[in-house]
Amino acid sequence: MEIKILKNIMGVNDQVAGKNRELLEKNKVFTINIMASPGAGKTSTVLQTIKALKPLRVGVIEGDISSTIDAETVAKVGVPVVQINTGGECHLDANMIQNALGNLPLDEMDVLMIENVGNLVCPADFKLGESLKALIASVPEGDDKPYKYPGMFTAVDVIILNKIDLLPYVKFSVEAFTQAVKGINSKAQIFPISCTTGEGVEAWGKWLKKRIKDTGK
Amino acid sequence: MEIKILKNIMGVNDQVAGKNRELLEKNKVFTINIMASPGAGKTSTVLQTIKALKPLRVGVIEGDISSTIDAETVAKVGVPVVQINTGGECHLDANMIQNALGNLPLDEMDVLMIENVGNLVCPADFKLGESLKALIASVPEGDDKPYKYPGMFTAVDVIILNKIDLLPYVKFSVEAFTQAVKGINSKAQIFPISCTTGEGVEAWGKWLKKRIKDTGK
Repeated sequence: MEIKILKNIMGVNDQVAGKNRELLEKNKVFTINIMASPGAGKTSTVLQTIKALKPLRVGVIEGDISSTIDAETVAKVGVPVVQINTGGECHLDANMIQNALGNLPLDEMDVLMIENVGNLVCPADFKLGESLKALIASVPEGDDKPYKYPGMFTAVDVIILNKIDLLPYVKFSVEAFTQAVKGINSKAQIFPISCTTGEGVEAWGKWLKKRIKDTGK
Repeated sequence: MEIKILKNIMGVNDQVAGKNRELLEKNKVFTINIMASPGAGKTSTVLQTIKALKPLRVGVIEGDISSTIDAETVAKVGVPVVQINTGGECHLDANMIQNALGNLPLDEMDVLMIENVGNLVCPADFKLGESLKALIASVPEGDDKPYKYPGMFTAVDVIILNKIDLLPYVKFSVEAFTQAVKGINSKAQIFPISCTTGEGVEAWGKWLKKRIKDTGK
């Protein structure tokens, strides 16, 4: 009975996600679903990526349980942004995105970055209509996270390892992390970056630009 | 309809949590439900707290989606430990704890530390039968987390601010964090600690010992 209800919810979500995808593709908007733990640096990565993707025009959807802090930060750099407050829900879903898309100038955008709720579990299960699923891991979280959150680490197409400027101060082996990822997700490329120093951002931006181009932008 | 189902689930969970509480109180075991983001340092804090609480005898329940890494780490210091793998569930619930309690020597324990799944959202809603709800925040996550995860920050009795050894290297204001917490949860005391250097652990242990004593241990 419980499983039936869950399947139903997921089925409806997938349907709406499909519609979002159609609308986004019609407008030639490449969409990235960005997932991470709380405080891994999602908003900082969004800001760095906006710069790295220039001259592509980026729009942003900010997902948070509460507050408009992130949307205000993003709005300052002059890109269109919509804040979704889930009010307690631990992840974004396709329906929330559908509503937000109506408030974005899709015909003036090349890329949509969706910042999901900070959570390494629930967001992995909900399609939003995205072209790419990205996970931001961060150095202070430790190199064992792929073992503990395998659902998320296997669900994503690309992994950004943020805060590498903190490597001298914490116990973290990039090699051990990479091995752990490769063990469960051989296709996901890993980009070590620091949003503080800017290190690695160029390589990530270059890869993403190519990926966007390859999909026909 | 959906709300009814949810209320039902929560009602059943609360009932089982009540039974857990009775069993733990009968055995004079003070129980702490430890919640945090992934990688905030839950297991390190458990290890430091075990030392700080001596000669009190501690048992541990480790909650993870997958893996037995944390249970193995804790077992090495010679305390009884049970690993719960939720297999995808984003939080522990009272039923999982009920099963785990049957595998712990409660009559030889004074304190039970339950390490919940790394998640700043879902675990806040599920009572386990605990005497105390503790949140571990960590410096690299940023000082704005109380605004973004108000459900968790209001639900807890005490907040440990871990990784203060990283304060020189990241943007984090302990004062701003404290103000943000006080704005939504005036009763929760904050203990800044570093599990790496041991700073602040003594004050936290002293407070916890007094709290345990005050409940009649």
